[in-house]
Amino acid sequence: MDKVYSDSLKLHKKFHGKLETRSKVPIKNKADLSLAYTPGVAEVCRVIAKDKKLLKEYTIKKNTVAVVSDGSAILGLGNLGPEAALPVMEGKAVLFKEFAGVDAFPICLDTQDAEEIIKTIKYLAPVFGGINLEDISAPRCFEIEERLKKELSIPVMHDDQHGTAVVVLAAIINALKLKKLNKAKVKVVISGAGAAGTAVAKILVLYGIKNVYVCDSKGLISKDRNDLNAPKKELANLTNAGGTASLAEVLKNADVFIGVSGPNIISRAEVKVMNEKPVIFAMANPVPEIMPDEAKAGGAYIVATGRSDFPNQINNVLAFPGIFRGALDNDVTQITDAMLVKAAENLAKYVKKLTSENILPYPLDKGVVKAVARAIR
Amino acid sequence: MDKVYSDSLKLHKKFHGKLETRSKVPIKNKADLSLAYTPGVAEVCRVIAKDKKLLKEYTIKKNTVAVVSDGSAILGLGNLGPEAALPVMEGKAVLFKEFAGVDAFPICLDTQDAEEIIKTIKYLAPVFGGINLEDISAPRCFEIEERLKKELSIPVMHDDQHGTAVVVLAAIINALKLKKLNKAKVKVVISGAGAAGTAVAKILVLYGIKNVYVCDSKGLISKDRNDLNAPKKELANLTNAGGTASLAEVLKNADVFIGVSGPNIISRAEVKVMNEKPVIFAMANPVPEIMPDEAKAGGAYIVATGRSDFPNQINNVLAFPGIFRGALDNDVTQITDAMLVKAAENLAKYVKKLTSENILPYPLDKGVVKAVARAIR
Repeated sequence: MDKVYSDSLKLHKKFHGKLETRSKVPIKNKADLSLAYTPGVAEVCRVIAKDKKLLKEYTIKKNTVAVVSDGSAILGLGNLGPEAALPVMEGKAVLFKEFAGVDAFPICLDTQDAEEIIKTIKYLAPVFGGINLEDISAPRCFEIEERLKKELSIPVMHDDQHGTAVVVLAAIINALKLKKLNKAKVKVVISGAGAAGTAVAKILVLYGIKNVYVCDSKGLISKDRNDLNAPKKELANLTNAGGTASLAEVLKNADVFIGVSGPNIISRAEVKVMNEKPVIFAMANPVPEIMPDEAKAGGAYIVATGRSDFPNQINNVLAFPGIFRGALDNDVTQITDAMLVKAAENLAKYVKKLTSENILPYPLDKGVVKAVARAIR
Repeated sequence: MDKVYSDSLKLHKKFHGKLETRSKVPIKNKADLSLAYTPGVAEVCRVIAKDKKLLKEYTIKKNTVAVVSDGSAILGLGNLGPEAALPVMEGKAVLFKEFAGVDAFPICLDTQDAEEIIKTIKYLAPVFGGINLEDISAPRCFEIEERLKKELSIPVMHDDQHGTAVVVLAAIINALKLKKLNKAKVKVVISGAGAAGTAVAKILVLYGIKNVYVCDSKGLISKDRNDLNAPKKELANLTNAGGTASLAEVLKNADVFIGVSGPNIISRAEVKVMNEKPVIFAMANPVPEIMPDEAKAGGAYIVATGRSDFPNQINNVLAFPGIFRGALDNDVTQITDAMLVKAAENLAKYVKKLTSENILPYPLDKGVVKAVARAIR
């Protein structure tokens, strides 16, 4: 077994997971108890009952986010169920606190029925200032997020979609800058039409990239396909693609490849048919769509992956902590697409010494949170 | 406004509530991140997916309890809804951690439908090692707890029922000892047939007290009443009471009065009709069924209340932290009535210098947790 795996097992076993709860107030004597609990707390209840808007003033709702999953799409592992999702959701909660000071709690739901998930999250909403949806498979993730955004008055974001989209857009902005390419003219090909691929396509179009092509395992998603579900039909309309073509065919004369699909989807041959010195984001984990050395051998100028052991790591931790920090601090009830584009722009600008091996901030740079949070208002 | 109320408001506003989440593991560098999160965490997910029994080994499930309310019976304030319940549930979560090292998280559900509450808690169960139900009104609380106990494999306890029952039984055990009364012969009258009164009646009968009488606002609960709901019918069968009588009439020749009802229900006149030097537990909060000086004026020998400003405080914090500490540590899947009786006996025994003004341990004595936890195995 890889050392990182055996060490991770050891760490999780030693501490029985990674998250704990703590009191923010002293409980040393009866006086403390009478303020934090009965009888004093009764007045806080009465005040909130009279005016629910005060809930954020007097409770953890001000700074607390639920990290919710049904375990249907855990990392790259697939549908392992809610129990197996818990280590990831705990990890995410830990990152929320460490990077952005956001208190977060993992919620792993023992149902994969979209309606039941929506209803349950609505029942849970009083305690939370925001809902981070995580590792919920497409296409259910789209409906669940959309409905919750409509039906709740706290911010809801599916991080696999929008966290990824923000970081990819930031990386694209800097890649285009380095290559001096115009967003209206550049050709971008996305491999993968799940949660991440769909959200990336949408944010790129919104940002002003005119030529976006999305492929799933059957090739180009276009208006001429008759096997598309509703979210993929929406993608076909958004990108306005027609005809049928394989991923390799679509890559001809492309400037940018974005992989959010699976391991070893392309090789240097496909990179060679792209425009000169193309940009390759191969984000499948742990094995990318193409390994960086192979992409370079095909002529790639900028290569990014999801991995920490290569340059240009496209890591959601650059986005979600700042997005929710901003949403909570600015009492944002809805995280809009415009805010997400702005967050990507701020993230891109945060890179001071832009090079082909440094198009994104360092994931552990804690200053990133503020830059992103400023966009969410 | 009372100072305790204004100070409590200030405290809650200053910290935005009372609870926070924290990482138990270091997140200082990329290596830490690769163990707590990707890629290392993937192995933990895989291991749990293969054997769900390992969930407690590797995650917070080992030490985490949900404090769940629907806000339908908050303290003595009534049905103020889930938002107003949050300060209490946060407080309870804080007490869990401070007294027993149990990580607890408040869940305030935006539904008061029993079936929906049951379903939602079942959906939430993967993350938690136990469920503490709180401030849910009778009679729904009985069905919700019973069903969850049957349908979940983690311990479920409604604290308003059983936490109270354990502490009352401990106090009764010590009061009978002081008064040298036999549990088979003593007459106990309970005023209040809600969550607490019902559970107290049941645990007293189980403990071996033969003569238990329960009154609600209409008088004695007996087999001859035709206005009883199912839980009250069960109480009538349990206590085997017949006929009709007012609380004052039932109190004649009683040795013990237990009030879990409302303020100023009885006066010294009713105490005088009881047996000589009776035991009075007047637990309504903040105003007891009878004030201690009035009870003493009527001849009472031992007086206990729910308040911290009189001797003999009957406080649930003596029970629930230890009960869940024991349940979590001993992998108890069901908290049984026998365990609760044993917990009360341990709690009673914990009092070293038994006097009429010292029948229960001091609520902030942290040694209590261990004594109670030993019973839950």
